[in-house]
Amino acid sequence: MSDAYATLIERVKEIGRLEAIEQLLDWDQETYMPPKGVTGRAETVAMVAALKHEQRTSAEMGDLLGQVGEDDDPVRATNVRETRRLYQRAVRVPTELVREIAHTSALAKSVWAQARADSDFKAFAPLLSKLLELRRSEAEHIGYEGEAYDALLDEYEPGASTAEVAEVFADLRGQLVPLVRAIAQAPQRPDFSILQRHYPRPGQEEMARKFAGEMGFDFQAGRLDVSVHPFCTSMSSSDVRFTTRYDEHYLPAAVFGVMHEAGHGLYEQGLDPEHAFTPRGQFVSLGVHESQSRMWENLVGRSRPFWERHFAWGQTVFPQALRDVTLDEFYGAINTVAPSLIRVEADEVTYNLHIVVRFEIERDLLNRGIDAADIPEAWNQKMTELVGITPPNDAEGCLQDIHWSMGAFGYFPTYALGNLYAAQFFAAAKKPIPDLDDRIRNGDLRTLLDWLRTNIHRRGMRYRANELCEVVTGAPLSTTPFMEYVNAKFKPIYGLA
Amino acid sequence: MSDAYATLIERVKEIGRLEAIEQLLDWDQETYMPPKGVTGRAETVAMVAALKHEQRTSAEMGDLLGQVGEDDDPVRATNVRETRRLYQRAVRVPTELVREIAHTSALAKSVWAQARADSDFKAFAPLLSKLLELRRSEAEHIGYEGEAYDALLDEYEPGASTAEVAEVFADLRGQLVPLVRAIAQAPQRPDFSILQRHYPRPGQEEMARKFAGEMGFDFQAGRLDVSVHPFCTSMSSSDVRFTTRYDEHYLPAAVFGVMHEAGHGLYEQGLDPEHAFTPRGQFVSLGVHESQSRMWENLVGRSRPFWERHFAWGQTVFPQALRDVTLDEFYGAINTVAPSLIRVEADEVTYNLHIVVRFEIERDLLNRGIDAADIPEAWNQKMTELVGITPPNDAEGCLQDIHWSMGAFGYFPTYALGNLYAAQFFAAAKKPIPDLDDRIRNGDLRTLLDWLRTNIHRRGMRYRANELCEVVTGAPLSTTPFMEYVNAKFKPIYGLA
Repeated sequence: MSDAYATLIERVKEIGRLEAIEQLLDWDQETYMPPKGVTGRAETVAMVAALKHEQRTSAEMGDLLGQVGEDDDPVRATNVRETRRLYQRAVRVPTELVREIAHTSALAKSVWAQARADSDFKAFAPLLSKLLELRRSEAEHIGYEGEAYDALLDEYEPGASTAEVAEVFADLRGQLVPLVRAIAQAPQRPDFSILQRHYPRPGQEEMARKFAGEMGFDFQAGRLDVSVHPFCTSMSSSDVRFTTRYDEHYLPAAVFGVMHEAGHGLYEQGLDPEHAFTPRGQFVSLGVHESQSRMWENLVGRSRPFWERHFAWGQTVFPQALRDVTLDEFYGAINTVAPSLIRVEADEVTYNLHIVVRFEIERDLLNRGIDAADIPEAWNQKMTELVGITPPNDAEGCLQDIHWSMGAFGYFPTYALGNLYAAQFFAAAKKPIPDLDDRIRNGDLRTLLDWLRTNIHRRGMRYRANELCEVVTGAPLSTTPFMEYVNAKFKPIYGLA
Repeated sequence: MSDAYATLIERVKEIGRLEAIEQLLDWDQETYMPPKGVTGRAETVAMVAALKHEQRTSAEMGDLLGQVGEDDDPVRATNVRETRRLYQRAVRVPTELVREIAHTSALAKSVWAQARADSDFKAFAPLLSKLLELRRSEAEHIGYEGEAYDALLDEYEPGASTAEVAEVFADLRGQLVPLVRAIAQAPQRPDFSILQRHYPRPGQEEMARKFAGEMGFDFQAGRLDVSVHPFCTSMSSSDVRFTTRYDEHYLPAAVFGVMHEAGHGLYEQGLDPEHAFTPRGQFVSLGVHESQSRMWENLVGRSRPFWERHFAWGQTVFPQALRDVTLDEFYGAINTVAPSLIRVEADEVTYNLHIVVRFEIERDLLNRGIDAADIPEAWNQKMTELVGITPPNDAEGCLQDIHWSMGAFGYFPTYALGNLYAAQFFAAAKKPIPDLDDRIRNGDLRTLLDWLRTNIHRRGMRYRANELCEVVTGAPLSTTPFMEYVNAKFKPIYGLA
């Protein structure tokens, strides 16, 4: 068994290195690749993906997994469990289907981009319908306990079940919808336009680097660059790269964008290098990853203590924009809540409702409750009901996100799960660190990071997300910490009881 | 046969794509990789090299090469010939030997770096001796017609023979040594210190980009970045990246460094995209590659017509440094000839003698005429005899170059071959373009580039270097064009008859 395990780990690390190469190709394409470099790049990326798939599904891999059996050692058990999961997901799906999904997605991405530009859902519907059929067929091959959506969700949030997610989201919906309505009719509103004044780029760069550095991001083991769509990627825990974009008339894009991506980056830098390129040294799930980015962006970055520390300095960086602004006005502005059409621009309170809309539609689609053609109607009706705003067109409605065009059904829930985990983890951190707010107010972000390192980052995939939540917070995932957080934060800002 | 050839080409392209990934990993490491990213990067690079080796030597590759046989079609013939050459070079060497060479080189590189820092050749000698034995053993496995050195030279300059190179170099030595002596005792000398004045970096960047652009380098299909050691690398003809370094008190580093690397880049951008990732779409040899960089750097960049075009503009970019300098003084300064210790800083006339020194020593080492321990003595004696200067220590003598520590015996000759090919190609270009000097003087570099594209770049590996030389210039490689060029250029500068 020991030999088989050692060989298995060697193979797993090779796959991990191929993934690191994929990350580098992707980072390069978004940052420094010259425009014409795109020629042939897709084939190189496809070749690496094919190599990875070959290695993941090889006969040798199957033999090794057959030999290693069960193991009590938690490191071995984690590595075997996750390697087996990925092996089974991969071998159960016929190569022909994998190829058809890849081909259809590639096509759908460009058709979607055009359909969005034209706000013409009908042009996208046939391919979307085909992608749905293909992914449903994939789910049937993979297998599931409850419903087909489980098999897709598992790709992004291993171990999560649709039923559990649905229950949590129904609860969330029930509590958030009234809060959003109350805020919409609130007696006082912050002045959001403060953030749309002129914020020169050099100051934004200085602020972004300062905040990421104070969060504990190690720039000797990572980089910050510029790209059209901000992202964070990792070649290893000692090479983590994130990006941002700068808008001189919208301060939050860079400042909170950087805290968000640096939050992802801290997770990657905090993974255990001893277990590099193996599941024990990799992140738990997209939901847990998002909990790290959202915690730093929102629970820290949009908190009052954080700006009590930094606002006076911020005024010296942007004297023109902030000279006549008070801390309270600024704090209100960065915490403006308002029903809006676009998910990526949504505030902390409405954001999760955008996700609930998508989740309910995805689940209905997979369960054949509705067809692809029904999406615009379902979308607009749910947006009106949940968020309180009706999209005037599909470009600002059901065509806004790229995910479905990539066949990524089951991805959206991880965003909302991330918000919930963030609040629950943050509340748990306050038990051993009761003075956390004071620490943030005094510029000590290290204590929080150390807690995250110990309780989350260094554990890699030792636990599934729901287990990790129990181990770290003493309770399963619930909406309570999140709702307590938003109620405590936003009601005072909006003058609500 | 057609099917086997098609499959062969598919496999060859996969190897080509792995090479593109190697280039990207390398470029990234030298430019943007964060310092700690080096952890684990070596293993990733080694994994790609191993994958490449596996694919190059696979049983399938052997079968396919057995099936394709001979072919009259020049494209197919080129691709089969070069793929077979690389296959045979790879399969003939035992895996154990390949691994030992890689391991010993890795070790030798760090020992060499320390030995150079300490100017302590004895510390390096044992590993160098071992590397020599390993490479000699590799040569025996590969096989050769004349002498072991042939098998090593063939890695860098396919098809070249040691005997031919030795004959050309002996001829070169005979003509250059007296010229260097005459120049050393010449009645007039340019003032080199002009180039050591203060040249602010922004001006150097402006000049570098302008010259590379006017040469025809397509910045939509490539990049210029900064690195400690300048280099040029290529992911494909539409993604070619080169680097430079800036020294504010030494203008030639960036200006001629950029023209050199952009010259390499133009070759890569000029390869036929229809044959991308196959030999027909790849460069002929390191010697021919160097002919392109040296032609642009020296025959264009250090020519009088080029600076007749640009000097007045250069004075506006660097008014402090160049205000009181005449075109003739500047032209003299950039063409200063003087015996010097360091190859990479050598001028056009002495440079080839630095190479002859290394070639003669390498050949003696491979033929067991001398041992590794004898290198310092042989080096100092040859430097004194050929270049006219005696190294005061080994750091500035036989320890200066990294090549031997990497086991790269047989690489050095390609630098001098590049200089000779450059002169011979340039002379050939002047037949159909008799007014080439005038064109350069008038800012037309495109005509020369077009000629290079047609006659050299677009031909890929259609011909071996020596065949290409005959096809393009009507004659085999000779020292005559180079000697005519240096005599015509440098004698007037130094007031010699």
